[in-house]
Amino acid sequence: MDIDKRLSDQIAFVLEADKSKSVGRQTYLADGSRKEGDAEHAWHLALMCMLLSEYSNEPIDVLHTMKMVLIHDLIEIDAGDTYAYDTAANATKREREVKAAERIFPMLPDDQAKALRALWDEFEEGQTPEARFANTLDKVQPLLLNDASGGRAWREHGVDAAKVFARNERTGDGSQTLWNYAKALIDANIEKGNLKP
Amino acid sequence: MDIDKRLSDQIAFVLEADKSKSVGRQTYLADGSRKEGDAEHAWHLALMCMLLSEYSNEPIDVLHTMKMVLIHDLIEIDAGDTYAYDTAANATKREREVKAAERIFPMLPDDQAKALRALWDEFEEGQTPEARFANTLDKVQPLLLNDASGGRAWREHGVDAAKVFARNERTGDGSQTLWNYAKALIDANIEKGNLKP
Repeated sequence: MDIDKRLSDQIAFVLEADKSKSVGRQTYLADGSRKEGDAEHAWHLALMCMLLSEYSNEPIDVLHTMKMVLIHDLIEIDAGDTYAYDTAANATKREREVKAAERIFPMLPDDQAKALRALWDEFEEGQTPEARFANTLDKVQPLLLNDASGGRAWREHGVDAAKVFARNERTGDGSQTLWNYAKALIDANIEKGNLKP
Repeated sequence: MDIDKRLSDQIAFVLEADKSKSVGRQTYLADGSRKEGDAEHAWHLALMCMLLSEYSNEPIDVLHTMKMVLIHDLIEIDAGDTYAYDTAANATKREREVKAAERIFPMLPDDQAKALRALWDEFEEGQTPEARFANTLDKVQPLLLNDASGGRAWREHGVDAAKVFARNERTGDGSQTLWNYAKALIDANIEKGNLKP
């Protein structure tokens, strides 16, 4: 592969990735003004990774973890964001996401396509210290925003606390400290009536 | 400083940083549907850093560069985005941004406040290989989006090519390859009438 083809494939991927900015999530910004998008969510996780890696249960490679969070939602360009508490959509989530991964990552030159697919698989499998911490960030960030915005997304969807705890069964695996912090926020939101007990 | 105060200061900063999602830029998304925000711009630069670092003129520390691009626009939470071709606003830009840096970064524990301020200063000064590459990405990304969206932001502001070239006088310093690519896009947009010659 000559350099021009390599570079133009990479740029085409960078422009394809731009669509991630238009994939909406269910979480409101901290100020409640609107819901956030996938790209800004990924940026927020990368910033948290940079600032909070000291709380990982296990030593992690920060660069590797940061790459993982930066790309973890690119598959939603095709598969869409699946709301955590939408049971029907979650039944088909994995199939839709794998199909997306098979279209999107191979736009890159082969070495990078393989590297990004491996990063995404690692995130999904959650079996390495880096993947465990990345998954913890991915769970803690919306909890922070939900709390800051007065539990708005939870109230709108009538979410109950048991579902939030079930979804966060493994959040402590990446960072017990961050999960303890988030758990206290969940409890406070049950108190306030933002989450059904 | 005990751990709880340290963590709660870090979380407060993470929530303050959330405001970066609401700072609007002048660049349209590739599909032209709307203008992008600071947080998604920073995410895009981090992704480009991850995929395109091979084109840096000099060897770079990718993690360090990625951190720099992730935080480079946080000061715009207070200072706002200053459009590249707005002469009046650019006259007061530096003063507004330094004042913002003096409020925002010190929200963090001292060690991280100093580290983030140092990263921002390094980006602004542009004197290291990492800062040169980060600045190149910061210039090339909007050129890619402007081209993809049919030069919409340029047409709306009646921008002329001489100003674009003047603004990009140092873009080749971080990566001659990426600048050559972007230069060809500028030329094509002059041809198409999206940029005044």
